[in-house]
Amino acid sequence: MRLHLLLCALLAPAPLAPAASALRNPGLWPLPLSVHLSPHLLHLSPETFRISHHPASTLGPFCTLLQKAFLRYHGYIFGAHKTRHRSPRLNKHGQLQQLTALVVQDSECDAFPSISSDESYALNVSGSVAVLKANEVWGVLRGLETFSQLIYEDSDRKFTINEACITDSPRFPHRGILIDTARHYLPVKTILKTLDAMAMNKFNVLHWHIVDDQAFPYQSATFPQLSKKGSYTLTHVYRPKDVREVIEFARRRGIRVLPEFDTPGHTQSWGKGQKNLLTVCDAKEKFSTVYGPINPALNSTYTFLSRLFAEISRVFPDEFIHLGGDEVDLLCWKSNAEIQKFMKQNKRFKDVRELESFYIQKVLNIISTLKKRPIIWQEAFDDHAKLHPDTVVQVWINRDYHLEQARVTAAGYPVLLSAPWYLDYINSGEDWRAYYAVEPLNFPGSERQKQLVLGGEACLWGEFVDATNLMPRLWPRASAVGERLWSNKEVSSTKEAYNRLTVHRCRMVRRGIAAQPLFTGYCDHEYNIEK
Amino acid sequence: MRLHLLLCALLAPAPLAPAASALRNPGLWPLPLSVHLSPHLLHLSPETFRISHHPASTLGPFCTLLQKAFLRYHGYIFGAHKTRHRSPRLNKHGQLQQLTALVVQDSECDAFPSISSDESYALNVSGSVAVLKANEVWGVLRGLETFSQLIYEDSDRKFTINEACITDSPRFPHRGILIDTARHYLPVKTILKTLDAMAMNKFNVLHWHIVDDQAFPYQSATFPQLSKKGSYTLTHVYRPKDVREVIEFARRRGIRVLPEFDTPGHTQSWGKGQKNLLTVCDAKEKFSTVYGPINPALNSTYTFLSRLFAEISRVFPDEFIHLGGDEVDLLCWKSNAEIQKFMKQNKRFKDVRELESFYIQKVLNIISTLKKRPIIWQEAFDDHAKLHPDTVVQVWINRDYHLEQARVTAAGYPVLLSAPWYLDYINSGEDWRAYYAVEPLNFPGSERQKQLVLGGEACLWGEFVDATNLMPRLWPRASAVGERLWSNKEVSSTKEAYNRLTVHRCRMVRRGIAAQPLFTGYCDHEYNIEK
Repeated sequence: MRLHLLLCALLAPAPLAPAASALRNPGLWPLPLSVHLSPHLLHLSPETFRISHHPASTLGPFCTLLQKAFLRYHGYIFGAHKTRHRSPRLNKHGQLQQLTALVVQDSECDAFPSISSDESYALNVSGSVAVLKANEVWGVLRGLETFSQLIYEDSDRKFTINEACITDSPRFPHRGILIDTARHYLPVKTILKTLDAMAMNKFNVLHWHIVDDQAFPYQSATFPQLSKKGSYTLTHVYRPKDVREVIEFARRRGIRVLPEFDTPGHTQSWGKGQKNLLTVCDAKEKFSTVYGPINPALNSTYTFLSRLFAEISRVFPDEFIHLGGDEVDLLCWKSNAEIQKFMKQNKRFKDVRELESFYIQKVLNIISTLKKRPIIWQEAFDDHAKLHPDTVVQVWINRDYHLEQARVTAAGYPVLLSAPWYLDYINSGEDWRAYYAVEPLNFPGSERQKQLVLGGEACLWGEFVDATNLMPRLWPRASAVGERLWSNKEVSSTKEAYNRLTVHRCRMVRRGIAAQPLFTGYCDHEYNIEK
Repeated sequence: MRLHLLLCALLAPAPLAPAASALRNPGLWPLPLSVHLSPHLLHLSPETFRISHHPASTLGPFCTLLQKAFLRYHGYIFGAHKTRHRSPRLNKHGQLQQLTALVVQDSECDAFPSISSDESYALNVSGSVAVLKANEVWGVLRGLETFSQLIYEDSDRKFTINEACITDSPRFPHRGILIDTARHYLPVKTILKTLDAMAMNKFNVLHWHIVDDQAFPYQSATFPQLSKKGSYTLTHVYRPKDVREVIEFARRRGIRVLPEFDTPGHTQSWGKGQKNLLTVCDAKEKFSTVYGPINPALNSTYTFLSRLFAEISRVFPDEFIHLGGDEVDLLCWKSNAEIQKFMKQNKRFKDVRELESFYIQKVLNIISTLKKRPIIWQEAFDDHAKLHPDTVVQVWINRDYHLEQARVTAAGYPVLLSAPWYLDYINSGEDWRAYYAVEPLNFPGSERQKQLVLGGEACLWGEFVDATNLMPRLWPRASAVGERLWSNKEVSSTKEAYNRLTVHRCRMVRRGIAAQPLFTGYCDHEYNIEK
């Protein structure tokens, strides 16, 4: 937290004007680091209120990212208003007329967010002009969300805000949502809507599990046959312009797009468009060919992967690439005569696990050459001690995940936590409470080990999810993970969280996100499927 | 099944024209009683194909219900077409130019469907004019759905149908969906969308659990305070015109609207707008008033209920009213001094269970006076032997529900089954298989007892459901119940059902219903949330 709390000194004590003085739960989510709300109220006019650049800001109207964000949040704040009623008259006195955004460091407007982006901000709402101060554009985006969350319609339908002083920064730098476009194709619009909802919950990584056994919807320029043969249909494909659109839409919201191309397992669909890539498992029946993981014994495999990952590293600007590495069918490798021969020739392989290690290290080398950092699922760590030192390990197996976190960090690798946050598992009732109760640093280990936890991800695997049910299944259940990864460790009361999250959920609904209810109750602006 | 199979004789053997001859799974759901598909194909032109009245039909263009149904199904069949592409040219030969609907009995077009409505139909698709024959309008509606399900787009994007002969009628006359507008208010549009989806699955009863503890959204003309005080907000109310719209929209689809006003428990919200209605439970702490069920000891209670149910019986045209009667807090009654006194004065009451019986019988008398038939939840039967003989008992408690069916029918009461079909309980995976595997007549009892099973209902209680997630949670899970209640007992292979239901689910999606996926895969026309 590099920003100072100086701004808060500006906040005058609340005058005793009973009509314009109240404290109510604005449903801030995730809860900022430090919140001072004054009971003194200000009102906003939808017609005249504006969000603009502070004169002292290093960024001005040329910054499209901020200009669009200003418009977006103006819409969020007053959106439902326009279609419903005329606004009440406001006194000039007690009116908040402007929010100005002040970026204090030299910050690039056209850059991509990264794991080291500074998302901190300070927000001062007092008098007629509120100030949102941040080191970088990313902090402005987070602060705009918080500012918009402070505003509500009072009983006279006046847009209202408490004078406030807020300073904020995230607890973890990697706060992700995994979507799976292989088990079901997700229309680009659904992905964009998800990014919108992510920004409302201050998530900053879209982990795009883009291909898998079932389908290869990524359209590769280098290997067009992969999607031509491996996608469900030719309409169920992400063209280069679709991918660019997702990446830019995410960037505008301070969200990184982390592509996952999972190998050597989970690659059935790859085999359709790329000959001799998959291992032919030893078939017991003469006429059926069963394919297994990518064949690690062929040079052609690594030539292919080098070229494919070279393309991926160009298409996806993020520093990281997720390489998968989970659930490899070693028995298929074992059954294949060619692979057996290869292992005998290379005497270093004691068993197929070491072959798996060999494969992973080859792919890690490719990634390293491309100047990208790798992320892998935990099996690749479990089975192979020798990973590149900057490899990030994602812990997903629920059983004893604390111990896995301890092992990974003890070995010196950065870690991402997903195990307790598999949102594709559903149950009746309020399962968000269990997600919320997770403490990501609650594992045996030193302070140095704890510092290796980069954050975590809520994973919505796609076996039973497509555009029909993704939004209500993800939200607000993922919101619980969002607060856990953003807010302080001490923010842990589920009772208090429930009160804020019900408000936040209705706010998402009002903004067009089909976030499902937490329990009985209502929203002032219900979701209307015809919208 | 009053219709004869004569029509099928018209179906000529398929000529051997390979280009226009194929059999594929059209995904008929629920599966009709008798289906003969010829491999001979016909094509339909979106521009010229029409659905109209057969010249010999007892009903003609004055029948708005049918006119609107013709339009609706024309839209379902060709809907996606218009926005996508121009239609290929069709030869006159091999073209299906018309579907004509032939109603053979004198059938009222403006009547309401009832439990004794005749939904049977026979459909003959052969040559240039297909004929849909039914005794009543209700059969035409069901047959239109089946006809529309036969049509698909071939690989050249030609709308295609196999020559076919189908005769069909439902196994059970009561096939319902329970929605709950008290735990969450459902916008009218969501209810109408649900009715549309119900018609696609040949459901014929909307069980409207309209009020409960949490809210009283029904706007009563007689007691306007009930919703004024008891609804969540004044915008979360069903006005008389909303109720009329739902009933008429349902009627147009051959669906009865069965209102439930659950008493004496589940009535907390009633107490807000109606003084001295609820029992004051003996409060242990001085300053807190705890209310329990409706007070059965006051004459004013029955005066109130008589007037309210008189209104309900006018507003809802259905022959049945659901009176609830579940989960009554007898301890609260026991704790109340007034009620204790009442029980002493009336020596016939041995315990509060008999008081419950007394209350239920009073309400049954009211309903009887109003010439309506009552439906009650099973507790009212469990606790009281003496029900009116035409009372229908709805079995909802999952444990040993077969035995409860046996007990209820042995006592001579008609029964509705819901226990295995509580769709508000959710789990990961393919839970529709369990719903599908239920055999409603699988309980110990005589043939006469089996005949007392009127059907059943899939119940989607609303604690965790509102407009954001109702559609994907209900569909296609409820479709499994739909087929179980419509199709023959022998239609029981889940494997075969899966193949048809995946096609049917995609068809619903194409028609704008957010039916969630059964498992991995895709639809040609994916659901797009922006639609």
